[in-house]
Amino acid sequence: MPGKNNVFIATSIDGYIADKNGEIDWLDAIPGLKDIDTGYDAFMSEIDALVMGRVTFETVNGFDMDWPYQKPVFVVSTTMTQIPVELKGKVQLVKGTLENIVKKIHQEGYHNLYIDGGNLIQSFLRADLIDEMIITVIPILLGGGHPLFGKLTTRLDFVCQATKLFLNSVVQNHYVRRHA
Amino acid sequence: MPGKNNVFIATSIDGYIADKNGEIDWLDAIPGLKDIDTGYDAFMSEIDALVMGRVTFETVNGFDMDWPYQKPVFVVSTTMTQIPVELKGKVQLVKGTLENIVKKIHQEGYHNLYIDGGNLIQSFLRADLIDEMIITVIPILLGGGHPLFGKLTTRLDFVCQATKLFLNSVVQNHYVRRHA
Repeated sequence: MPGKNNVFIATSIDGYIADKNGEIDWLDAIPGLKDIDTGYDAFMSEIDALVMGRVTFETVNGFDMDWPYQKPVFVVSTTMTQIPVELKGKVQLVKGTLENIVKKIHQEGYHNLYIDGGNLIQSFLRADLIDEMIITVIPILLGGGHPLFGKLTTRLDFVCQATKLFLNSVVQNHYVRRHA
Repeated sequence: MPGKNNVFIATSIDGYIADKNGEIDWLDAIPGLKDIDTGYDAFMSEIDALVMGRVTFETVNGFDMDWPYQKPVFVVSTTMTQIPVELKGKVQLVKGTLENIVKKIHQEGYHNLYIDGGNLIQSFLRADLIDEMIITVIPILLGGGHPLFGKLTTRLDFVCQATKLFLNSVVQNHYVRRHA
């Protein structure tokens, strides 16, 4: 059974996922955006598991709230040696090449994957392992910060399959990988 | 009479306007795109004049074809000293700060301006002199090249006023500057 690796993320117009200070408060620049349905719940209901990098994992785990994910989470890290005991059964540590990691996750029965975290998304793209990207564009030019996209040795072709406009302010573009 | 400075440009998903080799052949990656109306003629009919940098001017002037613009063109350059004689009456050289250049162009009766060329657009954005941007996203990750957007010292807020999808592949987003 083939799998699908998906990105669901917000960027600035100039493609940053965090500003120069690593902050993401600008994601709330459009009043009311977090009160409306921008498709996150529908997206989450379709995926089987999340795959995230260590930085994203530690960020989410550092929030002052309960663990937010109902679906299994796989954390890709070369440096972590164990998962906090309270997350056993919810989070697994995975190591190796991304191809092998994805293969292992498929073998566990999870095929539709949510790839999250800037560094991990860039690594997946470098390995041409991203199938779909839903990108919500917060209409700001930040002028610097942490870019979503990094260097690639070969270009990757997509199509924009759908576009949605929220609050007459925020566009969300749905890109699907196109193979020649 | 107030003026408006507009951008109408195509980028890759990762925000490049030319690839690593300065090439733009990837703009034609989606078959049929150049045969359909993506709003360029309507945009051009609304503007009073074009303002472009030297590099863009030399590129356009180097094409093996007649001068393509019916509207007046202002070329911003610190190094050019004269306009080719065959373009007299069509193209003017302008120098000075962008604020003064824009003021001068307004005084000549041209208010709705098409700001073109990567470097000049970045300069206009650094001076917060861009009012609207219509950005057509060619659905490719180039992974490197000449970025449309550069560094800014302060963020600039916009709204995405409209989005259009062409050929189920190419999205065009229309951003309008939002002042707090």
